[in-house]
Amino acid sequence: MIKIGIVGYGYWGPNLVRNFFEVPEKFTVAAVCDMNADRLRAAQLRYPSVRMTSDVHEIINAPDIDAIAIATPVSTHFDLAYRALRAGKHVLVEKPLTSTVEQAEQLVEFAEARRRTLMVDHTFVYTGAVRKMRELVETGELGTLYYYDSVRVNLGLFQHDVDVIWDLAVHDLSIMDYVVGEHPIGVSATGSSHIDGRAENIAYVTMFFESSLIAHIHVNWLAPVKVRRTMVGGSRKMVVYDDVEPSEKIKVYDKGVDVRGPEDIYRRLISYRSGDMTAPQLDIAEALRTEVYEFASAIEQNRKPLTDGEAGLRVVRLLQAATHSMKARGRLVDVSAAKVAHDSVY
Amino acid sequence: MIKIGIVGYGYWGPNLVRNFFEVPEKFTVAAVCDMNADRLRAAQLRYPSVRMTSDVHEIINAPDIDAIAIATPVSTHFDLAYRALRAGKHVLVEKPLTSTVEQAEQLVEFAEARRRTLMVDHTFVYTGAVRKMRELVETGELGTLYYYDSVRVNLGLFQHDVDVIWDLAVHDLSIMDYVVGEHPIGVSATGSSHIDGRAENIAYVTMFFESSLIAHIHVNWLAPVKVRRTMVGGSRKMVVYDDVEPSEKIKVYDKGVDVRGPEDIYRRLISYRSGDMTAPQLDIAEALRTEVYEFASAIEQNRKPLTDGEAGLRVVRLLQAATHSMKARGRLVDVSAAKVAHDSVY
Amino acid sequence: MIKIGIVGYGYWGPNLVRNFFEVPEKFTVAAVCDMNADRLRAAQLRYPSVRMTSDVHEIINAPDIDAIAIATPVSTHFDLAYRALRAGKHVLVEKPLTSTVEQAEQLVEFAEARRRTLMVDHTFVYTGAVRKMRELVETGELGTLYYYDSVRVNLGLFQHDVDVIWDLAVHDLSIMDYVVGEHPIGVSATGSSHIDGRAENIAYVTMFFESSLIAHIHVNWLAPVKVRRTMVGGSRKMVVYDDVEPSEKIKVYDKGVDVRGPEDIYRRLISYRSGDMTAPQLDIAEALRTEVYEFASAIEQNRKPLTDGEAGLRVVRLLQAATHSMKARGRLVDVSAAKVAHDSVY
Amino acid sequence: MIKIGIVGYGYWGPNLVRNFFEVPEKFTVAAVCDMNADRLRAAQLRYPSVRMTSDVHEIINAPDIDAIAIATPVSTHFDLAYRALRAGKHVLVEKPLTSTVEQAEQLVEFAEARRRTLMVDHTFVYTGAVRKMRELVETGELGTLYYYDSVRVNLGLFQHDVDVIWDLAVHDLSIMDYVVGEHPIGVSATGSSHIDGRAENIAYVTMFFESSLIAHIHVNWLAPVKVRRTMVGGSRKMVVYDDVEPSEKIKVYDKGVDVRGPEDIYRRLISYRSGDMTAPQLDIAEALRTEVYEFASAIEQNRKPLTDGEAGLRVVRLLQAATHSMKARGRLVDVSAAKVAHDSVY
Repeated sequence: MIKIGIVGYGYWGPNLVRNFFEVPEKFTVAAVCDMNADRLRAAQLRYPSVRMTSDVHEIINAPDIDAIAIATPVSTHFDLAYRALRAGKHVLVEKPLTSTVEQAEQLVEFAEARRRTLMVDHTFVYTGAVRKMRELVETGELGTLYYYDSVRVNLGLFQHDVDVIWDLAVHDLSIMDYVVGEHPIGVSATGSSHIDGRAENIAYVTMFFESSLIAHIHVNWLAPVKVRRTMVGGSRKMVVYDDVEPSEKIKVYDKGVDVRGPEDIYRRLISYRSGDMTAPQLDIAEALRTEVYEFASAIEQNRKPLTDGEAGLRVVRLLQAATHSMKARGRLVDVSAAKVAHDSVY
Repeated sequence: MIKIGIVGYGYWGPNLVRNFFEVPEKFTVAAVCDMNADRLRAAQLRYPSVRMTSDVHEIINAPDIDAIAIATPVSTHFDLAYRALRAGKHVLVEKPLTSTVEQAEQLVEFAEARRRTLMVDHTFVYTGAVRKMRELVETGELGTLYYYDSVRVNLGLFQHDVDVIWDLAVHDLSIMDYVVGEHPIGVSATGSSHIDGRAENIAYVTMFFESSLIAHIHVNWLAPVKVRRTMVGGSRKMVVYDDVEPSEKIKVYDKGVDVRGPEDIYRRLISYRSGDMTAPQLDIAEALRTEVYEFASAIEQNRKPLTDGEAGLRVVRLLQAATHSMKARGRLVDVSAAKVAHDSVY
Repeated sequence: MIKIGIVGYGYWGPNLVRNFFEVPEKFTVAAVCDMNADRLRAAQLRYPSVRMTSDVHEIINAPDIDAIAIATPVSTHFDLAYRALRAGKHVLVEKPLTSTVEQAEQLVEFAEARRRTLMVDHTFVYTGAVRKMRELVETGELGTLYYYDSVRVNLGLFQHDVDVIWDLAVHDLSIMDYVVGEHPIGVSATGSSHIDGRAENIAYVTMFFESSLIAHIHVNWLAPVKVRRTMVGGSRKMVVYDDVEPSEKIKVYDKGVDVRGPEDIYRRLISYRSGDMTAPQLDIAEALRTEVYEFASAIEQNRKPLTDGEAGLRVVRLLQAATHSMKARGRLVDVSAAKVAHDSVY
Repeated sequence: MIKIGIVGYGYWGPNLVRNFFEVPEKFTVAAVCDMNADRLRAAQLRYPSVRMTSDVHEIINAPDIDAIAIATPVSTHFDLAYRALRAGKHVLVEKPLTSTVEQAEQLVEFAEARRRTLMVDHTFVYTGAVRKMRELVETGELGTLYYYDSVRVNLGLFQHDVDVIWDLAVHDLSIMDYVVGEHPIGVSATGSSHIDGRAENIAYVTMFFESSLIAHIHVNWLAPVKVRRTMVGGSRKMVVYDDVEPSEKIKVYDKGVDVRGPEDIYRRLISYRSGDMTAPQLDIAEALRTEVYEFASAIEQNRKPLTDGEAGLRVVRLLQAATHSMKARGRLVDVSAAKVAHDSVY
């Protein structure tokens, strides 16, 4: 039985608490922490048996707590996770893992050194739809990957502290990181801000790979309609993942082009294939439930979870590179070099 | 009565011939030219009264012809249009106007010097849907423009001679040129080719303006589904133009954000507006019919047509800048400087 | 403050309890009753302050309870509601109000005699979408009503005790009863059962009115897709209400036909009108919340609620007539005569 | 080579003429007949080589014509087809075959007696989508059929001479006749007219079979949106055929219910199956082209065509039964007895 404390009971925290509660064979919710008294009261009403506190140190240092889940603003992730690891806890951190690449690197190293589980809450990775996409890539059903294209737009909510890439594209990057199995080497991003003094509310991010695979993410806080659509094109088949669809979120198209003919590439013929479309039945278990089990298993088996600190670090690298490129109006940024100056001390 | 000759009876030419025929109060179709004997025979069967020829000079120099419509591969546009203007004809050229900015500049100047009408066939500009978008921008109903985002993807047809930007994005650029009323100053584009020896089959083009307006076009020859969707966001309203919809192609959303509060921009409050959506009734006249009338009016009234040589030139500038930027993986290209070295001689 | 007891904590009961809880200025939830011990335990965990009981008499006769909400199987509605009214309670009953017309008539009379509020839980009547439809009819925006057509199909859940009309069409009938403002005089229904020993799982119900209005409801438990679509056609405008749409549930079409011409009706000309489509912004408050307020207001003001016993009775009349007609393969059944023999004794 | 004459060059005739022209290895278009001079002129312009006439007798009696295609108003079908058969021609008749069951029976008998091919133009039967549905039924992929449900609604065009059943439901009846492989024995129909002096513009038709299969067709000339959707439910799989979809017109759902358990049917358990959905690739050949080939083959091989006179007769039986039932507000009409009094003389 893992005794867990949850830090942050705002937007996402209640979902975490509920899911830990609903897996009583693995977790006991020992404490919930939030600095807002109203939220704490609401949590207490809902979960009378749980210890409530506004003092994060109490949770982090509690001897009866084995693991900490952090669902606070991103700027606090590094500090809280670092302290929790130092206190010997296993840690699950809301995405994005940290605000900078360097912080993420430190966390990964520190968890390794302390032999504690560090997991990032890339929730979408645990949905039936995304796992099906991974399966289609992994089994070779799609063939060689050509492109990964995602659109995530809607009206609101403008975030105060981050741009739209850190708020929305983080979902797509975490999904892509899991599905594609290859890592981008260069990023070119563009964007614009339409509210004075605020970060960019619309952005376009292109990612290049060693292969001819190209990835692109379009995010927008100011769209009149909600779109959540990812297209993945391969040499054999193509997938459309539409998360707004109530069912049939994944459609697999047996479509593509075949190139045949003489050695001379300029004289080769292109023909088009167009076969059946299939919408496979998907596992409809709640993603967060599956994720909570994965957290427990990783702790129990002393192994890396599916969305480990490295995955969180890779996503932060892309976020940071994209924001840098966007500031430079599309200038290509090398992902491995996208570090910022070190200004945190621990 | 304008006597017209049509050069090129391949994919688009038959549409031109049919529309000139169906406006008999303005045009008499005098001759059709194509180098392919089968096509000429098909044209003759359909239009027994029209002179058919495989010799383009015969049409261009025919004394009984007043105007020439050119629907041949883009690489031939400049040469044919130039000769036709030199022979004193009015000219309508399939889009894109030419293969290079310099050619387009020459054509525009030459038409000016010869006092002949030079028109580019930006067909979408004459649709009810696009004219409605223009009206929404022009009357201020959308407010200040924030973004122009367009997706034009489907499976096929790979072109032999041009990349996907010149084939598909040309439509979006010609629509945007008409609708937006502002001209891009910088372009950042990315793309990839997935067939050896072929030009890019997927591309993403971002355009920057003097204002905070940002435009983006996504084109792809290898998509499993056909998407033709443009979103235009403004400070007052937003529009979605979905050309795949059989009706209700234009939807106007009374949605947006309002910013209120103190001078201190960091403390201002953002609120969201969400009102009615309206799909206005659109003029359903065939676009090419309207365009043919415009060509006639411009000739008769000795005035610039709505899609004049300048419009064609502006679009070629963007195409050329986009292709340059794509080769440089997103490097920002200044639109006004996107000229290529002069290597054509006339 | 109204002290309320809820009988039945199965599928719908928890929604009732939650909504009464969330209107603390009007209601105090005093007790919850269910015969299933597991459900009671779940309720107790969730609402530690509430009295839980498996004895319905305890709730019905409790002196500290003013009103009873009944969310049990339909066959028990009459008996429970009757006892509650006899005990001087106000009563809110899940739809359909009762199993027979006679029971409904008795309840309505009894509530009248006891001067207690009798309300039926026609939840959809309290949604923003349905209230908008009512408004469009009431203000004359649709003109004279021509037809009311509704489709409510999906896969599952087969009910044990009632046919698909009593399970699904009851929603449409309650919506129609509120929206249309006219009452059917005749019913012709057809249907079929595809599982041995079970009631009909697919049914079609046509209703005739004094005017030329015609209404039709299609319900099906065995459809591969979920459809929830109502079309209402009037002489001036038409409405499509699609409840599966996440937003834009209501679309108003400025479409129709106009008849002009000579006295001789055979020579009149029909012309078609096709104007804008508008999707009005809808109130998105939870329907059950609005309904709970209406229950409180009706009790406090000693007036009939919007969905009073009469509304419940009218819907039961149609349900019973439809089932009768269905058994007779479409034979027209007079709504006012659709009584069944009296076999209940109280 | 079959020499064909086409009678009627209004809405559908031009499609027939074009398709006969485009199958030159089977057909020579010898003559076209229409009583309207403008239409004849348009036909002459388009097909200068074809003989044009306004005298139907000239075509019917022409010794150089082997077959006649009839695309005139339904009230004239019987007379024209009868004369053509009497003159020894093979005949293709627009749907519905005739105005009455008796006429259809006479035509079928007469064609049999004269040993001439009588074919009805049930065009949809020749589409890839409908043939796929037939295949799914015939191979048993759907299992036992439970229901056939079709909606065909839109705005306009009101017909002068027939009600909406004869105009629109005729399509669904001809498709169903081909797909289902069972014939209805009873019909219950309802409908309403909303324009004085005109036939019913909205109708609902239920059909019963020997088995528990039930069929229903909803047709409406006054709907604000165009719907063309057929659902076919079977014990193993279900199909949705949406003819408004540009692609993926057919979707096959591996969904259904399974019933298990004890002999006692009241205690059996129902479980739900929900597997993949597949949209099979369809033959996209023009239906009328395929139909024209079938007409030629039937003549050449001296065999019944797929949509022979009997098919036309079966559809007319259902149309007539439906109209009768509709006049009687849903009264069940026996299909085999749905004859009208004989009042034509030949």
